[in-house]
Amino acid sequence: MTADSSDVLIAELRAGLPDEAVVTDPDRLASYRQDMATFCPAGTPAVGVLARETAHVQHALRVASRLGVPVVPQGGRTGLSGGANAVDGCVVLSLEKMDRIIEIDPANRIAVVEPGVVNAVLSRAVAEVGLFYPPDPSSWEISTIGGNLATNAGGLCCVKYGVTTDFVRGLEVVLADGEVLRTGRRTAKGVAGYDLTRLFVGSEGTLGVITQATLALRPASQEPRTVAALFPTLAAAGDAVARVVASGLVPSLLEFMDQRSLRAANAYRNMGLPEHAAAMLIAQSDAHSDQAGADIAAIAAVFSGAGGFDVVEAENAAEGDLLLAARRDSHFALEALGSRLTDDVCVPLSLLADFVQRVEKVAADVGLTVAVVGHAGDGNLHPNVMFDADDADQVRRAQHAFDEIMRIGLEMGGTVTGEHGVGLLKREWLARELGPVSLRVHHELKRLFDPQGILNPGKVLATEIADAPPRP
Amino acid sequence: MTADSSDVLIAELRAGLPDEAVVTDPDRLASYRQDMATFCPAGTPAVGVLARETAHVQHALRVASRLGVPVVPQGGRTGLSGGANAVDGCVVLSLEKMDRIIEIDPANRIAVVEPGVVNAVLSRAVAEVGLFYPPDPSSWEISTIGGNLATNAGGLCCVKYGVTTDFVRGLEVVLADGEVLRTGRRTAKGVAGYDLTRLFVGSEGTLGVITQATLALRPASQEPRTVAALFPTLAAAGDAVARVVASGLVPSLLEFMDQRSLRAANAYRNMGLPEHAAAMLIAQSDAHSDQAGADIAAIAAVFSGAGGFDVVEAENAAEGDLLLAARRDSHFALEALGSRLTDDVCVPLSLLADFVQRVEKVAADVGLTVAVVGHAGDGNLHPNVMFDADDADQVRRAQHAFDEIMRIGLEMGGTVTGEHGVGLLKREWLARELGPVSLRVHHELKRLFDPQGILNPGKVLATEIADAPPRP
Repeated sequence: MTADSSDVLIAELRAGLPDEAVVTDPDRLASYRQDMATFCPAGTPAVGVLARETAHVQHALRVASRLGVPVVPQGGRTGLSGGANAVDGCVVLSLEKMDRIIEIDPANRIAVVEPGVVNAVLSRAVAEVGLFYPPDPSSWEISTIGGNLATNAGGLCCVKYGVTTDFVRGLEVVLADGEVLRTGRRTAKGVAGYDLTRLFVGSEGTLGVITQATLALRPASQEPRTVAALFPTLAAAGDAVARVVASGLVPSLLEFMDQRSLRAANAYRNMGLPEHAAAMLIAQSDAHSDQAGADIAAIAAVFSGAGGFDVVEAENAAEGDLLLAARRDSHFALEALGSRLTDDVCVPLSLLADFVQRVEKVAADVGLTVAVVGHAGDGNLHPNVMFDADDADQVRRAQHAFDEIMRIGLEMGGTVTGEHGVGLLKREWLARELGPVSLRVHHELKRLFDPQGILNPGKVLATEIADAPPRP
Repeated sequence: MTADSSDVLIAELRAGLPDEAVVTDPDRLASYRQDMATFCPAGTPAVGVLARETAHVQHALRVASRLGVPVVPQGGRTGLSGGANAVDGCVVLSLEKMDRIIEIDPANRIAVVEPGVVNAVLSRAVAEVGLFYPPDPSSWEISTIGGNLATNAGGLCCVKYGVTTDFVRGLEVVLADGEVLRTGRRTAKGVAGYDLTRLFVGSEGTLGVITQATLALRPASQEPRTVAALFPTLAAAGDAVARVVASGLVPSLLEFMDQRSLRAANAYRNMGLPEHAAAMLIAQSDAHSDQAGADIAAIAAVFSGAGGFDVVEAENAAEGDLLLAARRDSHFALEALGSRLTDDVCVPLSLLADFVQRVEKVAADVGLTVAVVGHAGDGNLHPNVMFDADDADQVRRAQHAFDEIMRIGLEMGGTVTGEHGVGLLKREWLARELGPVSLRVHHELKRLFDPQGILNPGKVLATEIADAPPRP
């Protein structure tokens, strides 16, 4: 983009937006360049738009459409795949300031929100009226509902409650040309027309910009009961997960940490976790009244039966939080150890231990540490490949390990991304996972909603469609 | 279609299909003309294809694409909106013979099935290994999974477990040109690419033909406990539903019958239900161990508190079934009284009683009986407009009432179809519900997947796109 065309863009944006909604200062703009992904290129935006209302988003998209300028929508920029990274000369369109909770309707158990509402803010607001918004990505204190919707975020409670898309009733979306599309409904059920709502959820801003969401809520759940156990081998931990599933128990959380992530937790906050264990599992139940205690006792027995040791049932919620702290902090504990690439593979539950063992072999082969944490109850694991970013050879080996882990995930019938999304990081792997027919349909849908290719270009799908052969 | 072109079609179909897969006998073909909808036109098919495998579906679609012949996919033809009705000169493509349960995988809680598997057959098969497939449309003994997927079928347990789309992990779909698309995954979580799976679910065969589905299962639930109560007024019954919701209780079923449907039940099977009540509510809980009993006691107390009388808690499952029998049989009980048009409006829960009262006013205005049953816990009600099909004036009034009920549903923030689908019956009402932008996007998606318009033409969307203004 030339200086002149950038001036035209900024002038046209200003013509329909309040002054404070248009950011041109390079220092301020720099903070909108990228999300939290490692190793993802980020361009330099021409301008930032901090939308306060749907009309601002419409104006930005109309101008961008007219001038053929790329638009990169952003929420809290906490993504891990580069999906919110700027491209050169783009408009970064931040939805953070559209942060109103428009309505909480306890009688119909729904909330209507703008996309900039932080997940934790919504969760606390609905809790005040005895309700519960389950999706709880680890970033919940800083990530926005809009970002959660764009990436179909998961979290710790998915094993019982599902992911973001399971709690969306309807959306308001601004299309590439600035028109407003309303999808879905407020009611509990409805089959009027195609499910456009879930087509936009998880599309990472490549098909339209979500400006409002009607979300389903649940009755508040009970304070959870917690149990944790250590396992002598990965196989024993995997077996324990399989036995919990086979038992028909429905924990509200079932998390996994391997030995390396236990060590990282000790190094980070001196958690005093036994470092000789191969793995730790942590489970919770939030079932009503006495059932939670019964569930946790049953899960404790399953853990023991599978070879678990140091099986600890929390006496109360505070002790439960303490048991879970190592897992909740693992992002920071691992970050403190240096650079890393975080994988996000989801495999069939029955292959959990096999998968982790194959990841360990990858780590040994490349001579790097790979620390595995994850949502065992869903088969969704996050192997973290640790490396020294100043050592070019380590970087190369880390990237190889990162790819190899996805290859193994696919080979085991899994997916390359359970909850982090594709963004820039996994575009080529998405193409492998989808295969040529699905990839072509993806490109066709992208062209339908975004014929000029201005919406978050290069994310999810490559802009050049070499990976999408035309119909025969 | 001329006799000649019909001969070409049949010859080309036979060239790639076993003899028994091609039906040309007019008497046999007649049985494939329509589903169970009232007042929906059905054409005369040119030929029937009874597919036994995906390759048969591919062949049929390749031939149909080449010749530009419409294809109407069919499951059990139990639909209530004409979505499976033949159009003149079409290929009726029955998936009923693709009825294999390919795999039940308890370790990963999934089943892989062909579309012709009857819902009840799958439900029983998974129950044998301690698992549970929740979606339970009233037609579950005769409707197929493929039909359930095509219409995103609901049922009685949705209030706790959700609808068909909530249990679909992945699909195999044959596209209009005969290519095979695989969507989704086997794993519990996954965000790799756009949610094509849920785009096909509920699309009523207008975007592609589902030939295989990977379905999520749950652990078996407990045998449910049941409570029923009568209410002196509709307002009291509506209040009871609102209070159950507000209490945070999660029944596994919460059904409604009005006075007219109670009378129909008595007439049908001498159920001995008190006919002076304005409405009956029936609730179940399948929570674990003692919780179900506690839930039912709490719901009974809520019912009493809202003015319910004759509050009966079932002593055992058999008695629970008996309490539920009147509701389960209401389809047949009402059918026995003559012709009817069954509506399927879903309204916000808080407006349930208001909605039924407005339906009663509509009935009084047109001078016909409207019997209301439905899934109170979801706000999804089925007002049945009763009429004499031989009386042209009654027919006209019945159609007016049917439309008026949808108009009221929309006015109250509801949807014209909670679970029965659009088919032929509600096309114009779908257009009203969606509005021009969404309708245009629907037509664009239809053209993307079916450029020739051969897939179930005229269902969901009108074939002439007068209702879809071009982009400005």
